[in-house]
Amino acid sequence: MRATLMYGAHDVRIETVPDATLREPTDALVRITASCICGSDLWPYGSMPATERGRRMGHEFIGVVEDFGSEVSGLKKGDLVVAPFLWADNTCDFCQEGLQSSCRHGGGWGSKNVDGGQGEAVRVPQAQGTLVKLPVAPDSVLIPSLLTLSDVFCTGHHCAVTAGVGPRTTVTVIGDGAVGLSAVLAAKRLGAEQIILMGRHKVRTDLGREFGATEVVAERGSEGIERVRELTGGDGTHTVLECVGTNPSLATAFGVARAGGFVSRVGVPQDNEIPFGVPEFMRNVTLTGGVAPARAYIEELMPDILDGTVEPGKVFDRTIGIDEIPEGYQAMADRQALKVLIRP
Amino acid sequence: MRATLMYGAHDVRIETVPDATLREPTDALVRITASCICGSDLWPYGSMPATERGRRMGHEFIGVVEDFGSEVSGLKKGDLVVAPFLWADNTCDFCQEGLQSSCRHGGGWGSKNVDGGQGEAVRVPQAQGTLVKLPVAPDSVLIPSLLTLSDVFCTGHHCAVTAGVGPRTTVTVIGDGAVGLSAVLAAKRLGAEQIILMGRHKVRTDLGREFGATEVVAERGSEGIERVRELTGGDGTHTVLECVGTNPSLATAFGVARAGGFVSRVGVPQDNEIPFGVPEFMRNVTLTGGVAPARAYIEELMPDILDGTVEPGKVFDRTIGIDEIPEGYQAMADRQALKVLIRP
Repeated sequence: MRATLMYGAHDVRIETVPDATLREPTDALVRITASCICGSDLWPYGSMPATERGRRMGHEFIGVVEDFGSEVSGLKKGDLVVAPFLWADNTCDFCQEGLQSSCRHGGGWGSKNVDGGQGEAVRVPQAQGTLVKLPVAPDSVLIPSLLTLSDVFCTGHHCAVTAGVGPRTTVTVIGDGAVGLSAVLAAKRLGAEQIILMGRHKVRTDLGREFGATEVVAERGSEGIERVRELTGGDGTHTVLECVGTNPSLATAFGVARAGGFVSRVGVPQDNEIPFGVPEFMRNVTLTGGVAPARAYIEELMPDILDGTVEPGKVFDRTIGIDEIPEGYQAMADRQALKVLIRP
Repeated sequence: MRATLMYGAHDVRIETVPDATLREPTDALVRITASCICGSDLWPYGSMPATERGRRMGHEFIGVVEDFGSEVSGLKKGDLVVAPFLWADNTCDFCQEGLQSSCRHGGGWGSKNVDGGQGEAVRVPQAQGTLVKLPVAPDSVLIPSLLTLSDVFCTGHHCAVTAGVGPRTTVTVIGDGAVGLSAVLAAKRLGAEQIILMGRHKVRTDLGREFGATEVVAERGSEGIERVRELTGGDGTHTVLECVGTNPSLATAFGVARAGGFVSRVGVPQDNEIPFGVPEFMRNVTLTGGVAPARAYIEELMPDILDGTVEPGKVFDRTIGIDEIPEGYQAMADRQALKVLIRP
């Protein structure tokens, strides 16, 4: 079968790899009908050292169950399913607590002996716990929105939930990428009335307004902080959803957080030391968030997609075939595309 | 009157200063009957650059109301009162939220025109909001415990509350100073069943056991982390109360935090960059805490002191007069004393 491998920065190739097959009785074999490129794929795309073996890519997908092992129940051949961006048994103590990202028997796509999502098919470990059935056809118009349940919409939701967003909290969202826009949508869905989106790409911030942003701040750094403070009577917002992952972005997040406020970050940190010192301490600012346990949120968020209440799939602005994946990466890196949908 | 001034590292002097007087109609004048030296006073005691003017010291005290301004109600002359380590109006929106440390009209002791607590008397700004009456005599045996409501017991409680300590959470407390031991007591009071105290001074960890610690870990760094993990089935604890304030201590805190766990810090940070990166992100560890709004907790904690349920005053192991304050600083810096009570 064909799949996507990254060999280094700006070196993405479509290659023929061994067909996905069942290995464990808890596996399922899924033929992919829709997948996508993630903003987090752009970090290695920008900086990964060259390798000889290549890394299998992709962690968001929808597909059809073709086969499954003897210990899998609840699935049948032909079911359309969505997978979260980490697989998990959904039964261990962490999973029971809603922290499937720390599942005792879980892991990531594209790791050893596990296929990536940017290909034709995937062996799904812990299939019964991992996969969630979709009550639509593979060509449904809802597919783009349902595909965001793999990652971005759940990640935006996780950001909002861990920050404590609700009807009485003001919100700043930092970043107008697909996760930031999803965070806006999640905050709106959770009842926030003031949602300030910090971003400077008009097409994206326009989508942010459509998703629920009440104000857009294009300035960055101290100017951006000043602007958000002006919009909030000088105090900053109760919650800050940091959807970039860099230290300058985090410093902005602390700068716009109200005393006693919560900064949640879901962009993979690009540094292991962060600027979080005495000023934040004196104002009792909390830093929360982390990698989203997407599996925990899929059932909760899906009904709002099915009934059209939310359309998170609007973050996809380009659809490509498997052969065009290298160009898809470049388009996202060049900010020519916000998020690229793949129809293998 | 006499008061304590710090002129630089290891240079604490008792001097005659202008008598405390009322300045604002919201002030009270309080004659101090008990005060103390704080672990946080040891940071400038160890490193403050030499100055010519000196800094007024002390932020924890109990005293008798001698006079008050025209806008103060609820107090009368002769009332015994305790003050939190920051003064606040207790009516602004932050105060109403329980964040008196961010009061819109509050401030700190020993700042411009405000006396410090390590002296004979204090002008108390925002007296009506700041002071809490004590239903005991100035020579009550409960005074040491009631004095901890100024800071350490409330700070330990804040640490435990922001971390989410409760009957179902396991706890690690880092630091066997007065705040760390207070955090143990607070965690026990909140119902925690497993409380691991990381500290290496036996006299102090013995008091920690008396306060509720179920295990003591003397090792530090990676060895200490390993030991806590052994005691928790490999997982670490749900909550970690970081009561030191240094980056090595914070790194230990992250190392012993369970996935999805909360690290709360109440020791004043000694660095403006902290080690909080990808590993913590991947495990969804939250960093919370900050300077304690002691005022928010005084009424809640006092009854347990009055009825003898808790005895946080056991952290005091030396009592001195005002002239001995310089020796008191040195004794705490040398770890000859855990916490020093002052009877002016």
